[in-house]
Amino acid sequence: MTGSPRNDRLIRALKREPVDCTPVWIMRQAGRYLPEYRASRERAGDFLTLCKTPELACEVTMQPLARFDLDAAILFSDILTIPDAMGLGLSLHEGEGPRFARPINSKADVDSLGVPDPEDDLGYVLEAVRVIRHELADRVPLIGFSGSPWTLATYMVEGRSTRDFAKIKNMIYREAPAAQKLLGLLSQSVGLYLKAQARAGAQVLMVFDTWGGVLGHAEYREFSLDPMAQVLSELQSDPIASKVPTIVFTKGGGQWLPQIASIGCDAIGCDWTTSLAQARLAVKDQVALQGNLDPAILYASPERIRSAVAEVLADFGSGPGHVFNLGHGVTPGVNPDHVKVLVDAVHELSVISP
Amino acid sequence: MTGSPRNDRLIRALKREPVDCTPVWIMRQAGRYLPEYRASRERAGDFLTLCKTPELACEVTMQPLARFDLDAAILFSDILTIPDAMGLGLSLHEGEGPRFARPINSKADVDSLGVPDPEDDLGYVLEAVRVIRHELADRVPLIGFSGSPWTLATYMVEGRSTRDFAKIKNMIYREAPAAQKLLGLLSQSVGLYLKAQARAGAQVLMVFDTWGGVLGHAEYREFSLDPMAQVLSELQSDPIASKVPTIVFTKGGGQWLPQIASIGCDAIGCDWTTSLAQARLAVKDQVALQGNLDPAILYASPERIRSAVAEVLADFGSGPGHVFNLGHGVTPGVNPDHVKVLVDAVHELSVISP
Repeated sequence: MTGSPRNDRLIRALKREPVDCTPVWIMRQAGRYLPEYRASRERAGDFLTLCKTPELACEVTMQPLARFDLDAAILFSDILTIPDAMGLGLSLHEGEGPRFARPINSKADVDSLGVPDPEDDLGYVLEAVRVIRHELADRVPLIGFSGSPWTLATYMVEGRSTRDFAKIKNMIYREAPAAQKLLGLLSQSVGLYLKAQARAGAQVLMVFDTWGGVLGHAEYREFSLDPMAQVLSELQSDPIASKVPTIVFTKGGGQWLPQIASIGCDAIGCDWTTSLAQARLAVKDQVALQGNLDPAILYASPERIRSAVAEVLADFGSGPGHVFNLGHGVTPGVNPDHVKVLVDAVHELSVISP
Repeated sequence: MTGSPRNDRLIRALKREPVDCTPVWIMRQAGRYLPEYRASRERAGDFLTLCKTPELACEVTMQPLARFDLDAAILFSDILTIPDAMGLGLSLHEGEGPRFARPINSKADVDSLGVPDPEDDLGYVLEAVRVIRHELADRVPLIGFSGSPWTLATYMVEGRSTRDFAKIKNMIYREAPAAQKLLGLLSQSVGLYLKAQARAGAQVLMVFDTWGGVLGHAEYREFSLDPMAQVLSELQSDPIASKVPTIVFTKGGGQWLPQIASIGCDAIGCDWTTSLAQARLAVKDQVALQGNLDPAILYASPERIRSAVAEVLADFGSGPGHVFNLGHGVTPGVNPDHVKVLVDAVHELSVISP
């Protein structure tokens, strides 16, 4: 459980140490675009059974590694395991997104929430981490993750996917104390959860702040960034978790990179709207950067994918601290062969000539 | 038709000239949150009849001015009139967004498109401009507008609202020449259309680039910004239109303000993710800024709305060149009294003390 991965490109890049070529992994690399994933899911019956059965979670986590020369595995799980453990009743339906049977509608609902105990309430996740680490046998590092407190709060209050975020914004603008209490509970919960993942064997930790970008610049700081800072602070106080590199990814957060860099993460995820060259200037090379190809490029021809990879590498430029990734998850309609083209192109085109 | 408005705060602010207080208007100020609008629409039968009947378009354009101390009227119309005039068959259904009966599926579909003649094919819009100008009697300026070429292209290719923009991105990544031809046609069409609106009496012109923010930073320049630059260049070559101030609003474009400022617009619209103070630094005060309150603040209490207005004014700071607005359209569930609170607060809190 404590071994270092033989392929340590990701860890080195996150620490801004030199690498032989740029490491690459892909958000949602274990997912519906892979026929073997669809077969596993078919057998499991539904998505949550896949997540909640450590052997199945391990099976699908390993699938993309069998096909592609990826530099990391990422725990197969959902960003909404914490609210599910809080008793909100998560369900996931293809094409509809997540739904909660018991969303948060009031201050009283917030008051009724407790902080989940990772081992007691989310033991299946920690067991999946252990099973996957065993299966990986130190080939590549394993990334653990959670949704950000703000992102969890949006789903918990909206109850489902939304375009206008009217309910959660009603809460922050009209019932700020309820929102603050909810985010405090979630910061604590996410901190404990990620710490437990690190202790179970996760070698990198990532916070997915999928919906931070819908907030105003001042509200982003209060309701998304400060809670993530609390999460990182919880990790930094732990002897094991404090050694695990962290990645914070606020989708649509390209204007806020200096603020994100200031909360103590090792790397920032960037979506494709951000130029990595400008991002490096903005964060003064104090953190590593992860990203940032538009997932839609995977619909294009292999030649076009290779040229797009070259453009991202050139945009980042020379020097350490780049982890190649898409700017968001790979989409279900993508041809897996195109993902192979991308992964191979990253390694091939980023080799530093002697 | 050629008179200057008695209330010229908007025009002055767009030219970065001193004003007695900050001008304010609101995107979608004539809309479903107003009971009198809902009554007009009920009588008209549907949204497109409202747009296509100049007297009705005038009626709803004037409604918010009767209630609120607004510093501008904006033509009541739809951003998709051009593709409708191109023969794509626009329909709009409440809660579903726009839909085209004959979307663009191929290069052959693009080849079949022509550039609409504003007087022949969009005469109802120009007639609405004339009727509204007459009704306004130079009380406040009238804003004309169009969707940006890129935003029109997204709807034309997707055929309806989308979350992932898969079809249009397929086109730009796999069939770039078809996409370039489509955007060329649309740049020409939007340029002619806005020029005709200026000649019919529009005193400010705004380009709504609702979907520029879904593009990568390099693709934004090629497929959204350059076409808008062509539109502005068409306007600048006309003796009448060249005197009309222009506003460009790319939602989610906060990272690209210096590039947007460089295409020759007078003002840039900002959404709420952007700090106006940082935006001023980014554009070096070379253009005016419009925005940028989160529309969701209108759900909050009058006191909270006033404090939010004060925060936006303070964020912009002193000096000329601010047009107050929301960062996106007002939403249907908002209490009209709250809009009044906002409008009055802008004027009251921005008065420059002697």
